[in-house]
Amino acid sequence: MKLHRLAVALVHHPVLDRRGDVVTSALTNLDVHDIARTARTYGVGRFYVVTPLAEQLQLLDRILGHWRDGHGAGYNPDRKEALSLVAGVPSLAAALDDWQRLCGAEPLPVLTAAARDGRLTFRDCARMLAQQPLLLVLGTGWGLAPELFQNGWPVLTPIRGAGSYNHLPVRAAAAIMLDRLGGQSG
Amino acid sequence: MKLHRLAVALVHHPVLDRRGDVVTSALTNLDVHDIARTARTYGVGRFYVVTPLAEQLQLLDRILGHWRDGHGAGYNPDRKEALSLVAGVPSLAAALDDWQRLCGAEPLPVLTAAARDGRLTFRDCARMLAQQPLLLVLGTGWGLAPELFQNGWPVLTPIRGAGSYNHLPVRAAAAIMLDRLGGQSG
Repeated sequence: MKLHRLAVALVHHPVLDRRGDVVTSALTNLDVHDIARTARTYGVGRFYVVTPLAEQLQLLDRILGHWRDGHGAGYNPDRKEALSLVAGVPSLAAALDDWQRLCGAEPLPVLTAAARDGRLTFRDCARMLAQQPLLLVLGTGWGLAPELFQNGWPVLTPIRGAGSYNHLPVRAAAAIMLDRLGGQSG
Repeated sequence: MKLHRLAVALVHHPVLDRRGDVVTSALTNLDVHDIARTARTYGVGRFYVVTPLAEQLQLLDRILGHWRDGHGAGYNPDRKEALSLVAGVPSLAAALDDWQRLCGAEPLPVLTAAARDGRLTFRDCARMLAQQPLLLVLGTGWGLAPELFQNGWPVLTPIRGAGSYNHLPVRAAAAIMLDRLGGQSG
């Protein structure tokens, strides 16, 4: 299934740090590249990089500029194609506004958390996506801050592997989620 | 399903570069971390980093030492746990030898390729794994060199997303493959 009515938001604030404090995490170049390439593979509509820091949004623009228009665009057109999905925004609300504008319908945020008892199965999430645009919300650092879970938005079931170890890189979690929602497994 | 009879090999030689030449690619720190964390999540038995370059194997040892025994071990015990799966080896043959020694049975290599018409489905691969140990072989750079495909080893079906774009990061491909083989999707 093409996921063109799904957008992904990678949130750098509000997220938790290792001590459980709410912080703004730093942009990670490879998160942007990896999640953009995976999003492009599965036909995701948009990939929002969310940070309230103006300097970080400028840094993102420089990265994107290099690959979209600069030396990197000629060197690696596939990367350009993937990074064309990326938009930097200062808040989750701004991501939702933009995604609504592009879709022409109100999108529902779907939260993700490794350490919470999310109830929305991937199958039901895929069904919801047939009805309305969704925004899949991923946290950096030690995950999305508790305040985001007080909005009544659905939370995806955590990815379970073989045991209790649940420290997937956000890049890997994004890949697994998009494959479960849109991949053609055999 | 726990994947304890599966090992993963990340190959830096022989692989292709962007022009199609057979080369030795450079170790990427984040490949090691990401694939180790994903492998640990799914209960994979071992993660071999394959490079014939002695300096690169020494670099790997320094990285692993930091997280296993050095400052990083205390700072992030979860990372230590993941990286304990990693072993540097000079060749795929050495990886197979070590995996056979650990399993007490001869492992079969299963090759992966984004741009080849691999026929082994993920479902059949999971069934094979119930019968014998496997070594899932991933290429860096522009993928595993043609010579590896002349051994008669099975090749996994490529990961298909929504269209023809097939430029997943190897870190993302590894995550998707392990989830398809051992994840509990709902």
